[in-house]
Amino acid sequence: MAEKEYVTYGKKSGCGCGCGMTGASQEITGCRFSLAPMTDRFVEVILGAIEKVDTSKVWKATDKLSTVYRGKQIHVEDALKATFVQAYQDGVHMTMEATFSKGCPGDTDADFILKEDDIPVNEAAIKDIHFPVACKIALYPMGIENYMEHIATVVNHAIDMGIYEGSSHYCTILNCDVQKLFEYFHDVNTYCGKELSHYIFEITCSVNSPTAE
Amino acid sequence: MAEKEYVTYGKKSGCGCGCGMTGASQEITGCRFSLAPMTDRFVEVILGAIEKVDTSKVWKATDKLSTVYRGKQIHVEDALKATFVQAYQDGVHMTMEATFSKGCPGDTDADFILKEDDIPVNEAAIKDIHFPVACKIALYPMGIENYMEHIATVVNHAIDMGIYEGSSHYCTILNCDVQKLFEYFHDVNTYCGKELSHYIFEITCSVNSPTAE
Repeated sequence: MAEKEYVTYGKKSGCGCGCGMTGASQEITGCRFSLAPMTDRFVEVILGAIEKVDTSKVWKATDKLSTVYRGKQIHVEDALKATFVQAYQDGVHMTMEATFSKGCPGDTDADFILKEDDIPVNEAAIKDIHFPVACKIALYPMGIENYMEHIATVVNHAIDMGIYEGSSHYCTILNCDVQKLFEYFHDVNTYCGKELSHYIFEITCSVNSPTAE
Repeated sequence: MAEKEYVTYGKKSGCGCGCGMTGASQEITGCRFSLAPMTDRFVEVILGAIEKVDTSKVWKATDKLSTVYRGKQIHVEDALKATFVQAYQDGVHMTMEATFSKGCPGDTDADFILKEDDIPVNEAAIKDIHFPVACKIALYPMGIENYMEHIATVVNHAIDMGIYEGSSHYCTILNCDVQKLFEYFHDVNTYCGKELSHYIFEITCSVNSPTAE
């Protein structure tokens, strides 16, 4: 009988955090996301958006479940925002599920582009496009006991920005213009990138939902 | 100027874990999920599925972003499985994003139904329905240093069940029949409910994707 190949997360030695792994040495922020335009033309909507996004400053890969961008935080955020904004169509209900992450002990120095500049390459084309977005967020600071405090900081920042709609089971609900929402995502990633060794920031954005408020 | 109402996660006293909160005293498993049928008929598909699901053994609430079921683990799993299976339509690409969670220190003894029996009320109607599902999963054991070990245990269980397709950035990919997939979700929730004080188990299921393997 062939031996099974198991994963070994947490079983290697040499780290100080108990996880047994070292992670990437580079400052790689990643985002895995999926667009779901609820229309018969979903392929056209997704491909049409992708065509308009400049992904030259991030590493990217697509599989049948989602697309991943990896690189410098600002460029990953820029590519994600451009993909979402370019996929938006008047009257078409669409959701986007996205997972920002940085610092996973299982990460490696592979599959990334780290540009030296900080000029978001898509911003000029999308900065004047406005539409309202309903959004749920959840932050997972890993490996620390006081994770709830960091979650509170991030939620309270949404309150300060005036985009907080309320707390619900397992998430926080936001409601605002798309430009302000991505500004908030940037603030959260900046805070978490500095304060946390490993975090996951889950978001789901929804536009043109027919469900009543 | 009116004072802002901030959230206070992690700022109260009295807990032993550093989070500052006590959580629910009951064994409440929750699941927040969203269906995304990529068709012009998405409202009909979602409402048609909901009509066929018996949710008498869980607490439920729907907002414009998602639906939440809360209650005993087995009944929450049963209601979610029924919703997904009943929403399935031949040839229609659909995704379902779902967040299982238990043990959040911010949770309270509210919004739940805890039935004494363990008989899943929807299972008889759906147990013989089969279709292939592509799925990505991510487990977040909160508040502990050795979280990677628990993730490895859960991934290795997928390998043992023969449903593991591979590891990718920020998730693990599974591929199998819908019946086996929900059996796996049950095993993961059972393991995490016993071994972890607070966990989040994120899944995204996809059917009938036109994207090539």
